[in-house]
Amino acid sequence: MGVSGQAPNQGKEASFFENIYLWKSRMAAKFISERNIRFLLYEVFDIESLTKYDYYKDHNRKVFDMVLKEAMRLAKDLLYPLFEEMDRNPPGLVQGEVKVHPSIRDLMKEFGEGGWISATFPYEHEGEQLPHMLAEICELIFAAANYSTHAYPGLTHGAAHLIESFGSQDLFEIYVPNMLAGKWQGTMALTEPEAGSSLADIVTTAEPTNGDYYLIKEQKTFISAGDHDGVENVIHLMLAKIPGGPPGVKGISLFVVPKKRINQTGNLEFNDVICSGIYHKLGYRGCPIVQLSMGDKKDCRGWLVGEPHRGLAYMFQMMNEARIGVGMGATAMATAAYYASLEYAKTRHQGRKLTDKDPTLPPIPIIQHADVKRILLFQRAVVEGAQSLLTQCSRYVDLMKVSNDIKDKKKYNLLLELLTPIAKSYPSEMGILSVSQGLQCLGGSGYCADYPLEQYYRDCRIHPIHEGTTGIQGIDLLGRKVILEDGQPFALFLDELRHTIERAERYPELKIYIDELNKAIKRLQAVTHHLISISQQKGIELFLADATLYLEFFSIITIAWQWLLQGVAIQKALIEGTRTGDRNFYEGKMFTLRFFYRYELPKILWLSQRLMECDGLTVEMKTDYFKD
Amino acid sequence: MGVSGQAPNQGKEASFFENIYLWKSRMAAKFISERNIRFLLYEVFDIESLTKYDYYKDHNRKVFDMVLKEAMRLAKDLLYPLFEEMDRNPPGLVQGEVKVHPSIRDLMKEFGEGGWISATFPYEHEGEQLPHMLAEICELIFAAANYSTHAYPGLTHGAAHLIESFGSQDLFEIYVPNMLAGKWQGTMALTEPEAGSSLADIVTTAEPTNGDYYLIKEQKTFISAGDHDGVENVIHLMLAKIPGGPPGVKGISLFVVPKKRINQTGNLEFNDVICSGIYHKLGYRGCPIVQLSMGDKKDCRGWLVGEPHRGLAYMFQMMNEARIGVGMGATAMATAAYYASLEYAKTRHQGRKLTDKDPTLPPIPIIQHADVKRILLFQRAVVEGAQSLLTQCSRYVDLMKVSNDIKDKKKYNLLLELLTPIAKSYPSEMGILSVSQGLQCLGGSGYCADYPLEQYYRDCRIHPIHEGTTGIQGIDLLGRKVILEDGQPFALFLDELRHTIERAERYPELKIYIDELNKAIKRLQAVTHHLISISQQKGIELFLADATLYLEFFSIITIAWQWLLQGVAIQKALIEGTRTGDRNFYEGKMFTLRFFYRYELPKILWLSQRLMECDGLTVEMKTDYFKD
Repeated sequence: MGVSGQAPNQGKEASFFENIYLWKSRMAAKFISERNIRFLLYEVFDIESLTKYDYYKDHNRKVFDMVLKEAMRLAKDLLYPLFEEMDRNPPGLVQGEVKVHPSIRDLMKEFGEGGWISATFPYEHEGEQLPHMLAEICELIFAAANYSTHAYPGLTHGAAHLIESFGSQDLFEIYVPNMLAGKWQGTMALTEPEAGSSLADIVTTAEPTNGDYYLIKEQKTFISAGDHDGVENVIHLMLAKIPGGPPGVKGISLFVVPKKRINQTGNLEFNDVICSGIYHKLGYRGCPIVQLSMGDKKDCRGWLVGEPHRGLAYMFQMMNEARIGVGMGATAMATAAYYASLEYAKTRHQGRKLTDKDPTLPPIPIIQHADVKRILLFQRAVVEGAQSLLTQCSRYVDLMKVSNDIKDKKKYNLLLELLTPIAKSYPSEMGILSVSQGLQCLGGSGYCADYPLEQYYRDCRIHPIHEGTTGIQGIDLLGRKVILEDGQPFALFLDELRHTIERAERYPELKIYIDELNKAIKRLQAVTHHLISISQQKGIELFLADATLYLEFFSIITIAWQWLLQGVAIQKALIEGTRTGDRNFYEGKMFTLRFFYRYELPKILWLSQRLMECDGLTVEMKTDYFKD
Repeated sequence: MGVSGQAPNQGKEASFFENIYLWKSRMAAKFISERNIRFLLYEVFDIESLTKYDYYKDHNRKVFDMVLKEAMRLAKDLLYPLFEEMDRNPPGLVQGEVKVHPSIRDLMKEFGEGGWISATFPYEHEGEQLPHMLAEICELIFAAANYSTHAYPGLTHGAAHLIESFGSQDLFEIYVPNMLAGKWQGTMALTEPEAGSSLADIVTTAEPTNGDYYLIKEQKTFISAGDHDGVENVIHLMLAKIPGGPPGVKGISLFVVPKKRINQTGNLEFNDVICSGIYHKLGYRGCPIVQLSMGDKKDCRGWLVGEPHRGLAYMFQMMNEARIGVGMGATAMATAAYYASLEYAKTRHQGRKLTDKDPTLPPIPIIQHADVKRILLFQRAVVEGAQSLLTQCSRYVDLMKVSNDIKDKKKYNLLLELLTPIAKSYPSEMGILSVSQGLQCLGGSGYCADYPLEQYYRDCRIHPIHEGTTGIQGIDLLGRKVILEDGQPFALFLDELRHTIERAERYPELKIYIDELNKAIKRLQAVTHHLISISQQKGIELFLADATLYLEFFSIITIAWQWLLQGVAIQKALIEGTRTGDRNFYEGKMFTLRFFYRYELPKILWLSQRLMECDGLTVEMKTDYFKD
């Protein structure tokens, strides 16, 4: 309870506080739109078409619906009820071990035994061979209900997949089954106190021994779920340097470093990994972020994954998955915040129509004020645009996996490479603005702990930071992905947009948006070519100086594409006729599409102007000029 | 300490944590730039010129310097050290009274006895007759050190000024001296559970009696410093309705409602005002925000201020001051956040120049990366732009006060009316983005309690909400101020801009910015005229639908003007020669001016495009379309 002093039924303000309680219990009913999920999976991205591929042939819509239903049940019954409680009771470091909320143990078991961690794994590796599209929508559902709880199985899935992809059969057998079962936690252990964004500078060492293992020494920091008592063991997928290897990123290797190793009798024993600190954070408090110290007793053992010095390349698989995961988490929080503010806006009465000045008329629900509708449409445009982009990305993952043609596989891989920094950053950055607008919608109540908005506001601020800051993503997009393989991913991306435009041309209602998107594509090409010429003529520093702005510019156009793609499905439904009750859904989506094109896409005007200038302002600015 | 588990010198990670401690103690040294304050007061706004007016004739630069020095001392020694501590130990409601941090009692005494609450009051009312320009810069200093502590004397000043302006001699004598002395707290009590932004709907009643007082009944909510044990009494300046008056805002009267009233023996006695709840807030935790219940025992007495039914007009004096105060507070927090992230960027080493890929070279301070400089310049452009605008506003307050010509008085009043919603909203909205970028600058550390950024991020979110939300400010600007008195304030505003442009024309370096500002003025005129014609042809709802965007659009141009005005002073200093050590200050400011014109002003491109469309999207959107 955020207001203290008068518990319900104890004082005369009871009815006021009771309203908050009622509102809270009502609000619990909605943190995501199942209708929009079905729209994306079935109407926009046609998940059923995947079942024509051999790998997915056992599945059908009925299976997908059952999985979604079960994910919603888990989210509603187990995750959402813990959302506030876990924030109010964050993990603590007690005698060298992180104590998390007692429910985490049950949840990890549920995620493991329920097959959620292994959902996309193949049958022979104890998985269910579910499409990524579906699995990631389930992640969206879980994260919308409670992002912190979702981080534990999410990281475990990524770590297990990394061992599956590059580890030996031995490593797989020892670790993966326990991880998929939710008994052992997986982590990604990259960051060090002196090496955050700059992985070239990690100093953790791995000394070869006569055994099958290396001796690991040094510290890691900011490790999510890096230690806790909700599992029997924690398996770190850790970057370290084997002495004598090349300097920088070329000398990084990947190791499995368990918190407890299996001894000769088959029991777990101490592996000299110590949790040396836990961070007190702004939000995302349900999941511990910790510091680790390895090898204080010179007995921390790590097992090499794949070949020496290729660790960063391997780790990029987990990093890229985690980046999409962060985008999904950010989208999920913004989604939950949107429905919380929507519910408030429908029920809170305040003021009158601007055309009705008569103060004796009753106040109207604030959702009827144009400015409140603008706030809600902004949130919805961001949320449903981001959901669409992320589903698009997981569709590429699926197609990459099942395509028989090697050229197709490569195509989807390149598209995914290009879109990963956008799928990570757009929801992260816009999620903050969207949640902040959601909070604004509640006025003073949004600032108070009585409503969940203040927690979403704190929680969502992590996303532009973890798994590579927005600045890093900008450099990745412009400095690496756009110019990859002679610009192939960029050309493929434009093909995708043109293909959507072709499909949209069937619908006269979409004509104006096609025109806008075509203009945006021209701007995107012009800016990109200009920047590449700068790179050739004036060097890399000027080329990348405004990479963060380029990322924003590119992202807006990407989301505009996704909205046009949704527009095709909307128009199809509206023209082919919808059930009466459903028409409002499509009309609302059409307004949201229009909103994106009228309020968001025009931002490329100023961004492209700035990007074309490329005057080196920030390069020239001297450190000394920041004095005073 | 934000990371727990290892206290300094207790474990082997001591040196890492010690670094944080060192950083913290170092950082405490700077939350504001005294250099920039002197630049604004002496070089841009020529505060010394005020001393030619009779009212300020006793003062001179030496006095101003002494006041500034004393304000800095208070801020550094008393306020800043409590910044984090008060956040970690928020007020609580204990047996019907709010317990605040014990330092509040000492601070209120300090603010009272030190003459800070009465600084701008005339000599005959126990004040110091200091210019508002100076007093508000002192407020900036205090709020940058610790916004929460500053709220107590700030509200008390506003409430005392309200009684001084419209209350009887009796009311003045009973209340004002104790308030100015910091013994009694002042508040503004407007909001009610069912009447937040819509004051027309307040239901608090004031029944006339046979005595000199009215009987007050009902509840108020979200009252800052509405009750606490750091003072002997709390004086509410409260809006209520006298039964039988006109409906809506025309029936609102203003009352002084003390927590404790003076009885016939001259002692304080219970006045039937009960603190019924305290809010648990996202931030701004050093100051309690409470619910009040009046008249539960039918014995809450209130004394009418001025005439019946004119309460809202009176209250607007305090509201407008409070709105400027909010803008100042938002600017102050963004300022402190800027210096905290600047300090971090100077000392944190990470990565190399993009042109230096050799991983054996040592890492460089992150301030040398172009993207980090962009973040810092963004913060600085917002912070110093907003500081300038607020000083401009207080200059208008001073000139309004001392001008002998009634036409001049009116001119400054109209300019102030026009700029108040901008001075409130621009720092509030941009402060959030600016603090958020400051947090981003620290990466993972920004998200943790080891550094102050996470607190600034929580604290600053209040500003777009309290004293009228940004949505309300937009409607105030476009729906009221711009069209006031046949557009007089708008015309006067444009004159001010043209006057600055004339002064800037002396300096060739400013030519490009003059051109940009001239273009921006044309856009502002075009958009404004277009919207007014919409209002006449299509009605008020469409006219005001995008008022929030208009506010943003107008604000950016206003800050661009302030940067050009600063540019005049910068160029003057650079040309006339500066002390060697000072040249970096002016060069840095010149870069920041350039940054504003290259990265911020261009945002008017998309805003003006959208505002010219005025297609009624948000008006047409139906509530039912938000279903699903």
